[in-house]
Amino acid sequence: MRMYDIIHKKRDGEVLTKEEIEFVITGFTDGRIPDYQMSALCMAIFLRGMTAQETAHMTLAMAASGDQIDLSAIKGVKVDKHSTGGVGDTTTLVLLPLVASVGVPVAKMSGRGLGHTGGTIDKLESIPGFSIELTTEQFAHNVNTLGAALMGQSGSIAPADKKLYALRDVTATVDTIPLIASSIMSKKIAAGANAIVLDVKTGEGAFMKTLDGSFDLAQAMVEIGDEVGRQTIAVISDMEQPLGYAVGNALEVQEAIDTLRGQGPADLTELCLVLGSYMVVAAGVAKDAAEARQKLTESLEQGHALDTFRRFLKAQGADPAVADDPKLLPQAQKTVELPADRAGYVTRIHAEEVGTCAMLLGAGRETKESEIDLAVGLVLRKKVGDRVEAGESLVTLHVGDESRLAEVQQRLTAAYEIAEKAPVQPTLIYGVVTRDGVERFV
Amino acid sequence: MRMYDIIHKKRDGEVLTKEEIEFVITGFTDGRIPDYQMSALCMAIFLRGMTAQETAHMTLAMAASGDQIDLSAIKGVKVDKHSTGGVGDTTTLVLLPLVASVGVPVAKMSGRGLGHTGGTIDKLESIPGFSIELTTEQFAHNVNTLGAALMGQSGSIAPADKKLYALRDVTATVDTIPLIASSIMSKKIAAGANAIVLDVKTGEGAFMKTLDGSFDLAQAMVEIGDEVGRQTIAVISDMEQPLGYAVGNALEVQEAIDTLRGQGPADLTELCLVLGSYMVVAAGVAKDAAEARQKLTESLEQGHALDTFRRFLKAQGADPAVADDPKLLPQAQKTVELPADRAGYVTRIHAEEVGTCAMLLGAGRETKESEIDLAVGLVLRKKVGDRVEAGESLVTLHVGDESRLAEVQQRLTAAYEIAEKAPVQPTLIYGVVTRDGVERFV
Repeated sequence: MRMYDIIHKKRDGEVLTKEEIEFVITGFTDGRIPDYQMSALCMAIFLRGMTAQETAHMTLAMAASGDQIDLSAIKGVKVDKHSTGGVGDTTTLVLLPLVASVGVPVAKMSGRGLGHTGGTIDKLESIPGFSIELTTEQFAHNVNTLGAALMGQSGSIAPADKKLYALRDVTATVDTIPLIASSIMSKKIAAGANAIVLDVKTGEGAFMKTLDGSFDLAQAMVEIGDEVGRQTIAVISDMEQPLGYAVGNALEVQEAIDTLRGQGPADLTELCLVLGSYMVVAAGVAKDAAEARQKLTESLEQGHALDTFRRFLKAQGADPAVADDPKLLPQAQKTVELPADRAGYVTRIHAEEVGTCAMLLGAGRETKESEIDLAVGLVLRKKVGDRVEAGESLVTLHVGDESRLAEVQQRLTAAYEIAEKAPVQPTLIYGVVTRDGVERFV
Repeated sequence: MRMYDIIHKKRDGEVLTKEEIEFVITGFTDGRIPDYQMSALCMAIFLRGMTAQETAHMTLAMAASGDQIDLSAIKGVKVDKHSTGGVGDTTTLVLLPLVASVGVPVAKMSGRGLGHTGGTIDKLESIPGFSIELTTEQFAHNVNTLGAALMGQSGSIAPADKKLYALRDVTATVDTIPLIASSIMSKKIAAGANAIVLDVKTGEGAFMKTLDGSFDLAQAMVEIGDEVGRQTIAVISDMEQPLGYAVGNALEVQEAIDTLRGQGPADLTELCLVLGSYMVVAAGVAKDAAEARQKLTESLEQGHALDTFRRFLKAQGADPAVADDPKLLPQAQKTVELPADRAGYVTRIHAEEVGTCAMLLGAGRETKESEIDLAVGLVLRKKVGDRVEAGESLVTLHVGDESRLAEVQQRLTAAYEIAEKAPVQPTLIYGVVTRDGVERFV
């Protein structure tokens, strides 16, 4: 088998075999296939596409390129949740204790983020004492006894994907559904989940800017799951404006705690209930989404979810008192309000810009070497549809390093669009894709 | 300017600017742009195409990547001729003295070949004493006084093309007209010609296998010439069967001498007259092709062409007596006839296979390191349309190293198709493309 012939075949729009795709992925991972051939193939895939089956082969080959986590020591159906990324997405922090509290085993491996804010680990590390240093045995034990545990992701989960993504990133071959879908799914599959619930974000602040593109991506991932025998459900949710109010590490932990107490933002709470319901159903803990939602709502109302969070924190070495006393979280040196420059209705909040502003305040990493300030970030006071008076605060900025504060204030002001007429209330959830088909809600 | 954005633009089917193309070529040549980005761009170009203007920009940028030969010391309009390659193509050896003999200055820079036989230099070096070691001054002097000179091509003619071709060769991005056309034209332009006559081969033994593809390539190159102010004419000629009879280095020199004496193969003579006529017209030495052909025919008949060849050989250090005594050329150790296995008419001769057989006998280089045996090769005794009796010789093999002789005999026998019914006489010249348009002869 020769890489040249495989490039040639895909270039001419033909379908690659399982063996050819495995040859490509193993050869690229171990360095026998040079970058310049792989990037030519990526561009051919970008422009010629891949079938669902080719994409599934690629996913499995990438999942097999490194460690494949064995979660069999953990009882029950392990359901993983993945979001395609957005701004102020606090769902993981809420869902982890929420679904665990109703009996879904949550065995979460997570990474550090490169983006507007840190990853799930960075966020949780803003809680004093929190540690991801668990042995595999502790990890399994904690899930079996408490319902949830979090471990740092091993460096060798889908190394082929890591190497390939780095190459795609510099050759303009990122934005193509077969490669995005196989990248996401290969990591989830290698991480050992039996079922996967995906939150595919759509809109300006998301990876996929268009609704159709988001449905297509969702469908591609659900098809992969189906091909490889891991039940996969994808929810398509809005990322035109940030989700919830908080964008920042400790700030999002605080927002998650509020939500677990039943006092969180309406959009965040609703999305967590929807995603959580699919997770509960996938785990076989409820017979349908309605029953699952009922269980989750009760858990929130009766304090079980927050209690599970306290126990989870304790098991990970952190102070569970943080769940009741937000002052225990790192606090920014000061807060600064961002006043509206006119009265009216908020018609749009450019999510991407809000995320960038949080990063500029120090909440996220611009490069791998950047240090995160866990305390800083911003909390939206107004969201789309809200009435605002001139001078009233749109956003509370939690500031440490002030070097780029003026720029942030200017950009945030521009990120808010205010008009005289109230806008149509934005849609939160556009639909769901399962192996049974696509359901569009709007 | 960023390479990433340029790849992205071409990937989306947009047209690149002159500045972007220059950025790519200079950056790739000096190593700032890595292979993996360049190969992604090549695949995007392969699948998205380039406009005539983009192709012209690319051509000029590649021509400018190394030395650009200044032929201004040579009087008159310098016309270069290029063939897209084929089997047994002896036209350059004939045309060089032929057009020089009617007053077209021939300032030829040539390379060594990697293929079925050597390049023009290898062929001429089979003449005892022949040398390409001329100073630039001698080169210009010889052209001005004798009408023709040949020099080895400098290593730094269009280095961008050399580097790019090597990359395309391993990434399945060779066979695309904008990249083929710009590759050929960049070298011709850097070599300093004022006008270019192209012989675009078509058919099984050619780079372009289909007639439409060959016309498209011809048109692309003529458009480049037009864009960059170098008059370019392309003739589309047949390469279904080898041109002439001889395939081999000294053997082709002998065939060229026969042709200059007016005793060459009919197809080779005709193609030389057609190509030569366009060269003469382009040089402004005749007002139209008919007058040019008249001049060339007279030169052949009156021995001027052969006489120019003698003087050219002498000026390059070779023995001019070779023009009258073929025994002075290197002779193979032995000759072997290839008998027809049945009677009938030759309906087809697979040109590519004939070329490969010549190479296997030692006439061409399989790799850069291969040594050529200048004496060996083969001479076709029968061509398409010829009647042959069983046992009659189809080909005379001129053999040195016999290690692959049996394989050659078997493959050559299979390369000849013989049937009971005479075939339609093959077309030699399919058409011509000039800036005024495309003229198809069949």
